[in-house]
Amino acid sequence: MNYGIVFKILGKILNLEALLMIPSLLVAVYYGESDVIAFIKCIIFIGIIGYAMSKVKSKNKKINGKEGLAIVTFGWILASFFGSLPYVVSGVIPSLVDAFFETVSGFTTTGSTILSDIEIVPKGILFWRSFTIWIGGMGILVFGVAVLPSIGVGGFQIFKAESPGPIKDRIVPKIKETAKILYTTYSIITVILMILLILGGMSFYDAVNHAFSTIGTGGFSTKNLSIGTYNSSYIHMIIAIFMLLSGVNFSLYYALYKGKWREVIKNSELKFYLGLIFISVVLISINLLFTSYDKISIALRDAFFQTNAIITTTGFSTVDFDKWPTFSKSILFLLMFVGGCAGSTAGGIKNIRIVALLKLVKRQIVKTFHPRAMIPVKIDGRSISSDTTAAITSFFVLYIGIFVVGTIIISFEGFDFLSSASAVATALGNVGPGFGVIGPMFNFSVFSDFSTLLLAILMLLGRLELFTIIALFAPTKWKNEV
Amino acid sequence: MNYGIVFKILGKILNLEALLMIPSLLVAVYYGESDVIAFIKCIIFIGIIGYAMSKVKSKNKKINGKEGLAIVTFGWILASFFGSLPYVVSGVIPSLVDAFFETVSGFTTTGSTILSDIEIVPKGILFWRSFTIWIGGMGILVFGVAVLPSIGVGGFQIFKAESPGPIKDRIVPKIKETAKILYTTYSIITVILMILLILGGMSFYDAVNHAFSTIGTGGFSTKNLSIGTYNSSYIHMIIAIFMLLSGVNFSLYYALYKGKWREVIKNSELKFYLGLIFISVVLISINLLFTSYDKISIALRDAFFQTNAIITTTGFSTVDFDKWPTFSKSILFLLMFVGGCAGSTAGGIKNIRIVALLKLVKRQIVKTFHPRAMIPVKIDGRSISSDTTAAITSFFVLYIGIFVVGTIIISFEGFDFLSSASAVATALGNVGPGFGVIGPMFNFSVFSDFSTLLLAILMLLGRLELFTIIALFAPTKWKNEV
Repeated sequence: MNYGIVFKILGKILNLEALLMIPSLLVAVYYGESDVIAFIKCIIFIGIIGYAMSKVKSKNKKINGKEGLAIVTFGWILASFFGSLPYVVSGVIPSLVDAFFETVSGFTTTGSTILSDIEIVPKGILFWRSFTIWIGGMGILVFGVAVLPSIGVGGFQIFKAESPGPIKDRIVPKIKETAKILYTTYSIITVILMILLILGGMSFYDAVNHAFSTIGTGGFSTKNLSIGTYNSSYIHMIIAIFMLLSGVNFSLYYALYKGKWREVIKNSELKFYLGLIFISVVLISINLLFTSYDKISIALRDAFFQTNAIITTTGFSTVDFDKWPTFSKSILFLLMFVGGCAGSTAGGIKNIRIVALLKLVKRQIVKTFHPRAMIPVKIDGRSISSDTTAAITSFFVLYIGIFVVGTIIISFEGFDFLSSASAVATALGNVGPGFGVIGPMFNFSVFSDFSTLLLAILMLLGRLELFTIIALFAPTKWKNEV
Repeated sequence: MNYGIVFKILGKILNLEALLMIPSLLVAVYYGESDVIAFIKCIIFIGIIGYAMSKVKSKNKKINGKEGLAIVTFGWILASFFGSLPYVVSGVIPSLVDAFFETVSGFTTTGSTILSDIEIVPKGILFWRSFTIWIGGMGILVFGVAVLPSIGVGGFQIFKAESPGPIKDRIVPKIKETAKILYTTYSIITVILMILLILGGMSFYDAVNHAFSTIGTGGFSTKNLSIGTYNSSYIHMIIAIFMLLSGVNFSLYYALYKGKWREVIKNSELKFYLGLIFISVVLISINLLFTSYDKISIALRDAFFQTNAIITTTGFSTVDFDKWPTFSKSILFLLMFVGGCAGSTAGGIKNIRIVALLKLVKRQIVKTFHPRAMIPVKIDGRSISSDTTAAITSFFVLYIGIFVVGTIIISFEGFDFLSSASAVATALGNVGPGFGVIGPMFNFSVFSDFSTLLLAILMLLGRLELFTIIALFAPTKWKNEV
């Protein structure tokens, strides 16, 4: 491993993080609250450490697969660690473990919080909290690739390890261009949402925060009651639609921009994703009408909002969906696992993998009748290689395996089963709230430091799609087994 | 499809079932209870229908894959339907849906019951109930293959479709001989347990019933409190050990008999199975000692019993494990999915599949460093073909998929999430009791007819390892797709 270059780039990432705290400092200065000094201290401290690290000598600039994994994994861990300092220094979250949890939750676009009263937190800190989601959504390092001149060489290795989904397509041949296109699209959609929210009567500050949180599919709100604070169907619907849009593969927006309509309309993952949302909304609405709701329009609105909030792993809430009947909760629980589309800001297993897995099952059924037939698995007309199917099935098995082991460990806390299982599912899928003690009206402060840290690790595992981190920590014996 | 031969063999299966009711009739006569007439009526009725069906003309005796699937699927459905008649005719279970559930639960060795007071049921009926488990354990049709002269030709197709596990090995070249060896081993172990239980002070009648139920890994008891009725560590431990033994691949006993010790000791599935039991017992014991138990010996005994009861999918209970802390319950819930070894009488996903899946994940991790390497997956020194890995991963995906969809449907009943999810897991894994409203101290009479029927179908799906049934009902379009 080329440790020199790894250190160097990690240093640059910290420098970048210090720069990224400046907007939060400006917000703090504007509102003249107590968090100004905290930001100044943190920016200087992180800047110095980053500068020192970036001065480490490296023999060459080569970034291979291994270095890519190390840069991404440690980049995320360091960014989260140093990113948590404003919470600690300002005194908003005195415990470093809790602050680390909150920052990982932001960068991984999970949106789980340990704060019980959000509205008393200084505005600069809250802005930083929402901003971590926006940066993490498209990828801390993809951002680095886009703006830092010197990461160009190993960019693809980093991009490959950080971007979600089983098939890593560059939109354009140059990885730096790809990163820039992604961030431009991302910024445009964010600004559009911001404007629409302001038109709906939301304050400028809240609109910016909620736009970051929505487009990054994170779900941190500036309000204790999340989007439920706003008694406006317009705001509910606008946010629901933009959550849905953020769960779509961003390269499809570029395809649209390039006029490739057919490619978008025929996309199997998109069709599956929209189909699943449609079915879920219908089933949940019916269930709600049969139990607690009177008006069809309200049932549809809330079902549409909550379905999108969960499948896109944003995690906003307009109602306490933990009080919904078990049937609706079971559907939402399933959606936590499915997540959004590959190449979106959403978490979870991703729709494309589910599509591929269903096709594998179908092939196996056909094989019962034709045991010796060679049947390729096709998505969007293209055959998937056996390497890709192996990667997808292994991902699924590992995802379920980590969920199961995680649930067993977390259940040691003694909470009920659904609380424990949904805490792990929501962390691994980067969703946000769960059910029971971590339902939408509660927070994660109920867990011990050990479990808080475990959940933060699960968020990182989920965001970096398991193998990036696990491979790095695999026994050396395995690496040399071939 | 050769409908003639399918009908013919289904007829023979019903004839066999009528014969298999004779021991229960004799028990009823011996105890002189009200169920004598019911058995006489059922035996005559089923015998006549079976005889009529077996007289159907068939062009030839060819049994191919398709016929094998049809015979096994409809054989199980018909045997369960007609096997439920004694419950209905005797008035013990007036509802046909409930009686069908009870019979499917027996034949699939699930052991879930809809009876609330077992001890008032006539002894002949209870004997039939335990006997269905014993017959179903090794396979209704494997039994047919072993004793009926005319199924010889297509025996392997039937054996393949009915016997559990991904790799279908005949112990000896002739399938009829294989079936006979399996049933002889099975009978010997059953008789040994029976004797040991009688030596422990159990009545002859209860010993026979519990031996059937244990070796078939079904878990029907003749007592309302299941094995908890017996305040004897000897009986608890004997049954726990024999449950463990019944979860082992029966061909290993034949290997032992042939003196092939090394083959048994080196068996990866066996090692994984025993390792998982060991870890689970240790973790649960510790958890119990930290919460409600005082004595190590009692904690170990109960943990050992309940771990084996669940992993072997027997489902007996000596205590109300639904009252155990969430950590222990989560472990038991996981074990419901794992199940026993291939070629045992236990249900679940089977340990060999879990071993294979873990090896696939490990290979994927190694591949992160060597993306282009061809790495074979080996179990017990033999490479698994890509066809087998595809079959195993598809099975896993389908199993989880059916569990998820089943849970969503069952949750419409409005019970809590853990009750709903465990009802589906316990049916699909052929376990027996679950948690919550279907915990070990309760029964399945709480469900509507719709859900009762759905759970029965899930039991059949689980017992016949999903693809047998699903392939038969797959759209014709799929069958001709190659």
